[in-house]
Amino acid sequence: MLAKGFFITFEGIEGSGKTTQIELLANYLETAGYPILVTREPGGTMIGNKIRQILLDPQNEAMDYHTEILLYAADRAQHFQEKIKPALKEGKIVISDRFVDSNLAYQGVGRGLDYDFVYKINDWVIDSCWPDLTLLLDLDFRTGLKRARALSADLTGDRVEREADAFHQKVRNAYLDLAAKDDRFELVEAAGDKTEVHQKIKNIISRRLA
Amino acid sequence: MLAKGFFITFEGIEGSGKTTQIELLANYLETAGYPILVTREPGGTMIGNKIRQILLDPQNEAMDYHTEILLYAADRAQHFQEKIKPALKEGKIVISDRFVDSNLAYQGVGRGLDYDFVYKINDWVIDSCWPDLTLLLDLDFRTGLKRARALSADLTGDRVEREADAFHQKVRNAYLDLAAKDDRFELVEAAGDKTEVHQKIKNIISRRLA
Repeated sequence: MLAKGFFITFEGIEGSGKTTQIELLANYLETAGYPILVTREPGGTMIGNKIRQILLDPQNEAMDYHTEILLYAADRAQHFQEKIKPALKEGKIVISDRFVDSNLAYQGVGRGLDYDFVYKINDWVIDSCWPDLTLLLDLDFRTGLKRARALSADLTGDRVEREADAFHQKVRNAYLDLAAKDDRFELVEAAGDKTEVHQKIKNIISRRLA
Repeated sequence: MLAKGFFITFEGIEGSGKTTQIELLANYLETAGYPILVTREPGGTMIGNKIRQILLDPQNEAMDYHTEILLYAADRAQHFQEKIKPALKEGKIVISDRFVDSNLAYQGVGRGLDYDFVYKINDWVIDSCWPDLTLLLDLDFRTGLKRARALSADLTGDRVEREADAFHQKVRNAYLDLAAKDDRFELVEAAGDKTEVHQKIKNIISRRLA
Protein backbone atom coordinates (compact mmCIF):
# COMPACT_ATOMS: atom_id res chain seq x y z
CA MET A 1 0.00 0.00 0.00
CA LEU A 2 1.16 3.52 -0.80
CA ALA A 3 0.79 6.26 1.78
CA LYS A 4 -0.45 8.56 -0.94
CA GLY A 5 -1.41 7.75 -4.52
CA PHE A 6 0.94 7.51 -7.46
CA PHE A 7 -0.06 9.02 -10.78
CA ILE A 8 1.17 7.38 -14.01
CA THR A 9 0.35 8.61 -17.50
CA PHE A 10 0.97 6.91 -20.84
CA GLU A 11 1.73 9.06 -23.86
CA GLY A 12 2.67 8.40 -27.46
CA ILE A 13 1.47 8.75 -31.03
CA GLU A 14 -1.39 6.71 -32.52
CA GLY A 15 -0.56 3.00 -32.60
CA SER A 16 2.31 3.19 -30.11
CA GLY A 17 0.69 0.43 -28.05
CA LYS A 18 -0.58 2.43 -25.07
CA THR A 19 -3.80 0.44 -24.62
CA THR A 20 -2.03 -2.93 -24.70
CA GLN A 21 0.74 -1.84 -22.36
CA ILE A 22 -1.70 -0.29 -19.88
CA GLU A 23 -3.63 -3.55 -19.75
CA LEU A 24 -0.45 -5.54 -19.07
CA LEU A 25 0.76 -3.09 -16.43
CA ALA A 26 -2.63 -2.96 -14.71
CA ASN A 27 -2.72 -6.77 -14.44
CA TYR A 28 0.81 -6.81 -13.10
CA LEU A 29 0.13 -4.17 -10.43
CA GLU A 30 -3.17 -5.70 -9.41
CA THR A 31 -1.53 -9.11 -8.98
CA ALA A 32 1.11 -7.41 -6.85
CA GLY A 33 -1.71 -6.17 -4.61
CA TYR A 34 -1.80 -2.46 -5.43
CA PRO A 35 -5.16 -0.68 -5.53
CA ILE A 36 -5.37 0.81 -9.01
CA LEU A 37 -7.56 2.95 -11.23
CA VAL A 38 -7.19 2.69 -15.00
CA THR A 39 -8.65 5.56 -16.95
CA ARG A 40 -8.28 7.31 -20.30
CA GLU A 41 -8.50 10.65 -22.10
CA PRO A 42 -10.44 12.11 -23.68
CA GLY A 43 -13.56 10.71 -22.02
CA GLY A 44 -13.80 8.67 -18.90
CA THR A 45 -16.69 10.52 -17.25
CA MET A 46 -20.29 10.80 -18.41
CA ILE A 47 -19.83 14.50 -19.16
CA GLY A 48 -16.41 13.84 -20.69
CA ASN A 49 -17.82 11.24 -23.07
CA LYS A 50 -20.31 13.78 -24.38
CA ILE A 51 -17.45 16.23 -24.94
CA ARG A 52 -15.46 13.51 -26.70
CA GLN A 53 -18.29 12.89 -29.15
CA ILE A 54 -18.04 16.51 -30.25
CA LEU A 55 -14.23 16.36 -30.56
CA LEU A 56 -14.11 13.20 -32.66
CA ASP A 57 -17.13 13.76 -34.91
CA PRO A 58 -15.81 14.17 -38.49
CA GLN A 59 -18.82 16.48 -39.11
CA ASN A 60 -17.20 19.09 -36.87
CA GLU A 61 -14.41 20.01 -39.27
CA ALA A 62 -15.14 23.72 -38.90
CA MET A 63 -13.94 23.54 -35.30
CA ASP A 64 -11.84 26.55 -34.34
CA TYR A 65 -8.53 25.76 -32.66
CA HIS A 66 -9.44 27.69 -29.50
CA THR A 67 -12.57 25.54 -29.25
CA GLU A 68 -10.58 22.34 -29.62
CA ILE A 69 -8.08 23.29 -26.91
CA LEU A 70 -10.89 24.28 -24.54
CA LEU A 71 -12.92 21.11 -25.14
CA TYR A 72 -9.91 18.91 -24.40
CA ALA A 73 -9.28 20.97 -21.27
CA ALA A 74 -12.95 20.72 -20.23
CA ASP A 75 -12.90 16.95 -20.60
CA ARG A 76 -9.71 16.85 -18.55
CA ALA A 77 -11.12 19.10 -15.82
CA GLN A 78 -14.08 16.79 -15.32
CA HIS A 79 -11.94 13.68 -15.53
CA PHE A 80 -9.32 14.96 -13.12
CA GLN A 81 -11.67 16.42 -10.51
CA GLU A 82 -14.26 13.60 -10.62
CA LYS A 83 -12.03 10.52 -10.92
CA ILE A 84 -8.27 11.02 -10.67
CA LYS A 85 -8.05 13.37 -7.68
CA PRO A 86 -10.32 11.27 -5.41
CA ALA A 87 -8.50 8.03 -6.37
CA LEU A 88 -5.10 9.55 -5.57
CA LYS A 89 -6.46 10.70 -2.22
CA GLU A 90 -7.49 7.10 -1.50
CA GLY A 91 -3.88 6.01 -2.11
CA LYS A 92 -4.47 4.33 -5.47
CA ILE A 93 -2.08 4.03 -8.38
CA VAL A 94 -3.84 5.88 -11.17
CA ILE A 95 -2.93 4.98 -14.76
CA SER A 96 -4.23 7.32 -17.43
CA ASP A 97 -4.16 6.64 -21.17
CA ARG A 98 -3.08 10.16 -22.26
CA PHE A 99 -3.12 13.32 -20.14
CA VAL A 100 -1.97 16.94 -20.43
CA ASP A 101 1.08 16.07 -22.54
CA SER A 102 -1.20 14.89 -25.34
CA ASN A 103 -2.58 18.41 -25.66
CA LEU A 104 0.83 19.97 -25.41
CA ALA A 105 2.09 17.67 -28.17
CA TYR A 106 -0.97 17.58 -30.45
CA GLN A 107 -2.35 21.10 -30.10
CA GLY A 108 0.45 23.12 -28.51
CA VAL A 109 3.25 21.92 -30.75
CA GLY A 110 1.76 19.73 -33.54
CA ARG A 111 -0.53 22.53 -34.69
CA GLY A 112 1.81 25.38 -33.73
CA LEU A 113 -0.77 26.87 -31.36
CA ASP A 114 -0.29 28.89 -28.21
CA TYR A 115 1.89 26.46 -26.30
CA ASP A 116 2.18 28.72 -23.24
CA PHE A 117 -1.56 29.24 -23.05
CA VAL A 118 -2.31 25.53 -23.42
CA TYR A 119 0.13 24.89 -20.59
CA LYS A 120 -1.43 27.57 -18.36
CA ILE A 121 -5.01 26.41 -18.93
CA ASN A 122 -4.05 22.86 -18.09
CA ASP A 123 -2.04 23.75 -15.02
CA TRP A 124 -5.17 25.55 -13.76
CA VAL A 125 -7.42 22.60 -14.66
CA ILE A 126 -5.35 20.04 -12.72
CA ASP A 127 -4.62 22.27 -9.71
CA SER A 128 -0.92 21.99 -10.69
CA CYS A 129 -1.03 18.26 -9.87
CA TRP A 130 1.27 16.85 -12.60
CA PRO A 131 1.87 13.08 -12.99
CA ASP A 132 4.52 11.38 -10.85
CA LEU A 133 5.62 9.40 -13.90
CA THR A 134 4.92 9.72 -17.61
CA LEU A 135 5.78 6.77 -19.86
CA LEU A 136 6.38 7.92 -23.41
CA LEU A 137 6.00 4.99 -25.82
CA ASP A 138 8.13 6.09 -28.73
CA LEU A 139 8.24 4.67 -32.24
CA ASP A 140 8.43 5.73 -35.87
CA PHE A 141 5.16 7.48 -36.76
CA ARG A 142 4.65 5.41 -39.94
CA THR A 143 4.79 2.17 -37.95
CA GLY A 144 2.38 3.69 -35.45
CA LEU A 145 -0.14 4.82 -38.03
CA LYS A 146 -0.02 1.43 -39.76
CA ARG A 147 -0.80 -0.29 -36.46
CA ALA A 148 -3.56 2.20 -35.59
CA ARG A 149 -5.24 1.80 -38.98
CA ALA A 150 -5.07 -1.98 -38.84
CA LEU A 151 -7.02 -1.82 -35.56
CA SER A 152 -9.61 0.64 -36.85
CA ALA A 153 -12.80 -0.88 -38.29
CA ASP A 154 -13.27 2.23 -40.40
CA LEU A 155 -10.17 2.26 -42.59
CA THR A 156 -10.44 5.97 -43.29
CA GLY A 157 -9.72 6.60 -39.59
CA ASP A 158 -11.37 9.23 -37.39
CA ARG A 159 -10.85 12.98 -37.66
CA VAL A 160 -7.55 12.90 -35.74
CA GLU A 161 -6.11 9.88 -37.57
CA ARG A 162 -6.62 11.36 -41.01
CA GLU A 163 -4.22 14.26 -40.43
CA ALA A 164 -1.20 14.50 -42.69
CA ASP A 165 2.10 12.68 -42.15
CA ALA A 166 4.01 15.86 -41.40
CA PHE A 167 1.70 16.48 -38.47
CA HIS A 168 2.40 13.04 -36.95
CA GLN A 169 6.12 13.53 -37.35
CA LYS A 170 5.82 16.88 -35.57
CA VAL A 171 3.84 15.31 -32.72
CA ARG A 172 6.42 12.59 -32.21
CA ASN A 173 9.16 15.22 -32.07
CA ALA A 174 7.08 17.34 -29.71
CA TYR A 175 6.78 14.38 -27.33
CA LEU A 176 10.53 13.81 -27.47
CA ASP A 177 11.15 17.47 -26.68
CA LEU A 178 8.75 17.38 -23.72
CA ALA A 179 10.44 14.22 -22.40
CA ALA A 180 13.90 15.75 -22.67
CA LYS A 181 12.86 18.72 -20.54
CA ASP A 182 11.21 16.99 -17.58
CA ASP A 183 12.38 14.25 -15.19
CA ARG A 184 8.90 12.82 -14.73
CA PHE A 185 9.20 11.33 -18.25
CA GLU A 186 10.66 7.92 -19.08
CA LEU A 187 11.23 7.11 -22.73
CA VAL A 188 10.21 3.57 -23.75
CA GLU A 189 11.28 2.27 -27.14
CA ALA A 190 7.97 0.77 -28.33
CA ALA A 191 8.64 -0.78 -31.73
CA GLY A 192 9.43 -4.23 -30.34
CA ASP A 193 7.38 -7.16 -29.12
CA LYS A 194 4.72 -6.35 -26.52
CA THR A 195 6.23 -8.64 -23.84
CA GLU A 196 9.59 -6.99 -24.29
CA VAL A 197 8.07 -3.50 -23.96
CA HIS A 198 6.10 -4.63 -20.90
CA GLN A 199 9.34 -5.85 -19.27
CA LYS A 200 10.95 -2.45 -19.77
CA ILE A 201 7.94 -0.75 -18.20
CA LYS A 202 7.96 -3.12 -15.20
CA ASN A 203 11.62 -2.27 -14.60
CA ILE A 204 10.87 1.46 -14.65
CA ILE A 205 7.89 1.09 -12.32
CA SER A 206 9.85 -0.97 -9.77
CA ARG A 207 12.54 1.67 -9.71
CA ARG A 208 10.14 4.61 -9.47
CA LEU A 209 7.82 3.11 -6.86
CA ALA A 210 10.74 2.06 -4.64
CA MET B 1 -23.04 51.80 -43.91
CA LEU B 2 -20.29 51.56 -41.33
CA ALA B 3 -16.65 51.49 -42.44
CA LYS B 4 -16.02 48.70 -39.96
CA GLY B 5 -18.48 46.66 -37.94
CA PHE B 6 -19.97 47.62 -34.59
CA PHE B 7 -20.30 45.03 -31.87
CA ILE B 8 -23.22 45.28 -29.40
CA THR B 9 -23.87 42.82 -26.59
CA PHE B 10 -26.95 42.53 -24.36
CA GLU B 11 -26.46 41.40 -20.76
CA GLY B 12 -28.71 40.98 -17.76
CA ILE B 13 -30.21 38.41 -15.41
CA GLU B 14 -32.85 35.88 -16.44
CA GLY B 15 -36.07 37.60 -17.45
CA SER B 16 -34.56 41.04 -17.96
CA GLY B 17 -36.07 41.19 -21.44
CA LYS B 18 -32.96 40.71 -23.57
CA THR B 19 -34.67 38.62 -26.27
CA THR B 20 -37.56 41.05 -26.71
CA GLN B 21 -35.33 44.11 -26.78
CA ILE B 22 -32.92 42.53 -29.26
CA GLU B 23 -35.81 41.79 -31.59
CA LEU B 24 -37.04 45.38 -31.39
CA LEU B 25 -33.57 46.82 -31.91
CA ALA B 26 -32.82 44.48 -34.81
CA ASN B 27 -36.03 45.55 -36.59
CA TYR B 28 -35.23 49.19 -35.97
CA LEU B 29 -31.67 48.93 -37.32
CA GLU B 30 -32.72 46.86 -40.33
CA THR B 31 -35.39 49.38 -41.23
CA ALA B 32 -32.74 52.09 -40.95
CA GLY B 33 -30.74 50.14 -43.56
CA TYR B 34 -27.89 48.75 -41.49
CA PRO B 35 -26.55 45.27 -42.31
CA ILE B 36 -26.92 43.31 -39.07
CA LEU B 37 -26.24 39.93 -37.54
CA VAL B 38 -28.26 38.83 -34.51
CA THR B 39 -26.77 35.98 -32.52
CA ARG B 40 -26.83 34.49 -29.02
CA GLU B 41 -24.80 32.71 -26.37
CA PRO B 42 -24.40 29.97 -25.49
CA GLY B 43 -25.01 28.31 -28.85
CA GLY B 44 -25.29 29.88 -32.25
CA THR B 45 -23.03 27.49 -34.17
CA MET B 46 -23.55 23.80 -34.88
CA ILE B 47 -20.66 22.89 -32.61
CA GLY B 48 -21.76 25.44 -30.02
CA ASN B 49 -25.27 23.99 -29.89
CA LYS B 50 -23.83 20.58 -29.05
CA ILE B 51 -21.79 22.19 -26.25
CA ARG B 52 -24.89 23.99 -25.01
CA GLN B 53 -26.76 20.71 -24.70
CA ILE B 54 -24.11 19.49 -22.28
CA LEU B 55 -24.18 22.74 -20.26
CA LEU B 56 -27.94 22.88 -19.83
CA ASP B 57 -28.72 19.19 -19.31
CA PRO B 58 -30.00 18.83 -15.69
CA GLN B 59 -28.47 15.30 -15.75
CA ASN B 60 -25.01 16.86 -15.68
CA GLU B 61 -25.21 18.11 -12.10
CA ALA B 62 -21.82 16.60 -11.25
CA MET B 63 -20.18 19.14 -13.55
CA ASP B 64 -16.97 20.52 -12.09
CA TYR B 65 -16.66 24.31 -12.13
CA HIS B 66 -13.50 24.24 -14.26
CA THR B 67 -15.44 22.19 -16.83
CA GLU B 68 -18.30 24.66 -16.85
CA ILE B 69 -16.03 27.67 -17.39
CA LEU B 70 -14.19 25.88 -20.20
CA LEU B 71 -17.36 24.74 -21.98
CA TYR B 72 -18.75 28.27 -21.99
CA ALA B 73 -15.42 29.50 -23.30
CA ALA B 74 -15.33 26.75 -25.98
CA ASP B 75 -18.80 27.68 -27.16
CA ARG B 76 -17.75 31.33 -27.29
CA ALA B 77 -14.54 30.56 -29.19
CA GLN B 78 -16.49 28.80 -31.93
CA HIS B 79 -19.18 31.46 -31.98
CA PHE B 80 -16.75 34.36 -32.10
CA GLN B 81 -14.37 32.93 -34.68
CA GLU B 82 -17.01 31.40 -36.95
CA LYS B 83 -19.71 34.07 -36.89
CA ILE B 84 -18.95 37.33 -35.08
CA LYS B 85 -15.46 38.07 -36.38
CA PRO B 86 -16.32 37.55 -40.09
CA ALA B 87 -19.51 39.64 -39.76
CA LEU B 88 -17.62 42.52 -38.15
CA LYS B 89 -15.08 42.34 -40.96
CA GLU B 90 -17.94 42.71 -43.46
CA GLY B 91 -18.98 45.91 -41.69
CA LYS B 92 -22.11 44.53 -40.02
CA ILE B 93 -23.63 45.57 -36.71
CA VAL B 94 -23.44 42.40 -34.62
CA ILE B 95 -25.91 42.04 -31.75
CA SER B 96 -25.22 39.20 -29.35
CA ASP B 97 -27.59 37.96 -26.64
CA ARG B 98 -24.99 37.52 -23.86
CA PHE B 99 -21.21 37.46 -24.29
CA VAL B 100 -18.11 37.35 -22.06
CA ASP B 101 -19.72 39.43 -19.30
CA SER B 102 -22.23 36.64 -18.66
CA ASN B 103 -19.39 34.34 -17.68
CA LEU B 104 -17.72 37.01 -15.61
CA ALA B 105 -20.98 37.65 -13.77
CA TYR B 106 -22.34 34.08 -13.48
CA GLN B 107 -19.16 32.06 -13.01
CA GLY B 108 -16.47 34.57 -12.10
CA VAL B 109 -18.44 36.46 -9.48
CA GLY B 110 -21.77 34.65 -8.90
CA ARG B 111 -20.02 31.41 -7.99
CA GLY B 112 -16.95 33.06 -6.46
CA LEU B 113 -14.63 31.34 -8.94
CA ASP B 114 -11.32 32.46 -10.39
CA TYR B 115 -12.41 35.79 -11.83
CA ASP B 116 -8.96 36.63 -13.17
CA PHE B 117 -8.61 33.29 -14.90
CA VAL B 118 -12.07 33.50 -16.46
CA TYR B 119 -11.14 36.95 -17.77
CA LYS B 120 -7.81 35.74 -19.18
CA ILE B 121 -9.29 32.69 -20.92
CA ASN B 122 -11.94 34.84 -22.52
CA ASP B 123 -9.58 37.57 -23.60
CA TRP B 124 -7.58 34.82 -25.36
CA VAL B 125 -10.70 33.33 -26.93
CA ILE B 126 -11.89 36.62 -28.47
CA ASP B 127 -8.44 37.84 -29.59
CA SER B 128 -8.97 40.76 -27.15
CA CYS B 129 -11.84 42.01 -29.34
CA TRP B 130 -14.26 43.32 -26.68
CA PRO B 131 -17.71 44.73 -27.61
CA ASP B 132 -18.02 48.36 -28.68
CA LEU B 133 -21.17 48.66 -26.57
CA THR B 134 -22.70 46.49 -23.86
CA LEU B 135 -26.31 47.16 -22.87
CA LEU B 136 -26.98 45.95 -19.35
CA LEU B 137 -30.73 45.47 -18.82
CA ASP B 138 -31.05 45.89 -15.08
CA LEU B 139 -33.98 44.98 -12.84
CA ASP B 140 -34.79 43.40 -9.50
CA PHE B 141 -33.87 39.71 -9.66
CA ARG B 142 -37.25 38.57 -8.26
CA THR B 143 -39.12 40.38 -11.05
CA GLY B 144 -36.71 38.86 -13.55
CA LEU B 145 -37.11 35.30 -12.29
CA LYS B 146 -40.90 35.67 -12.23
CA ARG B 147 -40.84 36.77 -15.88
CA ALA B 148 -38.43 34.01 -16.90
CA ARG B 149 -40.52 31.31 -15.25
CA ALA B 150 -43.73 32.57 -16.80
CA LEU B 151 -42.11 32.15 -20.23
CA SER B 152 -40.73 28.70 -19.51
CA ALA B 153 -42.91 25.76 -20.56
CA ASP B 154 -41.27 23.63 -17.91
CA LEU B 155 -42.16 25.44 -14.68
CA THR B 156 -39.28 23.90 -12.73
CA GLY B 157 -36.86 25.85 -15.01
CA ASP B 158 -33.59 24.56 -16.40
CA ARG B 159 -30.42 23.89 -14.42
CA VAL B 160 -29.39 27.55 -14.37
CA GLU B 161 -32.82 28.91 -13.44
CA ARG B 162 -33.22 26.69 -10.41
CA GLU B 163 -30.26 28.19 -8.55
CA ALA B 164 -30.96 29.90 -5.24
CA ASP B 165 -32.10 33.49 -4.82
CA ALA B 166 -28.85 34.58 -3.20
CA PHE B 167 -27.02 33.55 -6.36
CA HIS B 168 -29.24 35.68 -8.58
CA GLN B 169 -28.82 38.68 -6.30
CA LYS B 170 -25.04 38.21 -6.52
CA VAL B 171 -25.13 38.01 -10.31
CA ARG B 172 -27.14 41.24 -10.55
CA ASN B 173 -24.62 42.98 -8.32
CA ALA B 174 -21.74 41.51 -10.31
CA TYR B 175 -23.20 42.99 -13.50
CA LEU B 176 -23.57 46.38 -11.83
CA ASP B 177 -19.94 46.24 -10.69
CA LEU B 178 -18.74 45.34 -14.20
CA ALA B 179 -20.78 48.20 -15.67
CA ALA B 180 -19.37 50.71 -13.18
CA LYS B 181 -15.81 49.85 -14.19
CA ASP B 182 -15.99 50.04 -17.98
CA ASP B 183 -17.18 52.75 -20.39
CA ARG B 184 -18.39 50.28 -22.98
CA PHE B 185 -21.38 49.55 -20.69
CA GLU B 186 -24.67 51.43 -20.69
CA LEU B 187 -27.09 50.70 -17.88
CA VAL B 188 -30.75 50.38 -18.98
CA GLU B 189 -33.46 50.32 -16.33
CA ALA B 190 -35.51 47.36 -17.61
CA ALA B 191 -38.47 47.01 -15.23
CA GLY B 192 -40.81 49.20 -17.33
CA ASP B 193 -42.88 48.68 -20.43
CA LYS B 194 -41.04 47.16 -23.41
CA THR B 195 -41.70 50.17 -25.71
CA GLU B 196 -40.28 52.49 -23.08
CA VAL B 197 -37.15 50.34 -22.68
CA HIS B 198 -36.77 50.14 -26.47
CA GLN B 199 -36.88 53.95 -26.69
CA LYS B 200 -34.05 54.24 -24.14
CA ILE B 201 -31.99 51.75 -26.15
CA LYS B 202 -32.62 53.61 -29.43
CA ASN B 203 -31.39 56.82 -27.81
CA ILE B 204 -28.19 55.14 -26.64
CA ILE B 205 -27.56 53.55 -30.04
CA SER B 206 -28.04 56.82 -31.92
CA ARG B 207 -25.55 58.51 -29.63
CA ARG B 208 -22.98 55.68 -29.80
CA LEU B 209 -23.18 55.09 -33.55
CA ALA B 210 -22.89 58.82 -34.30
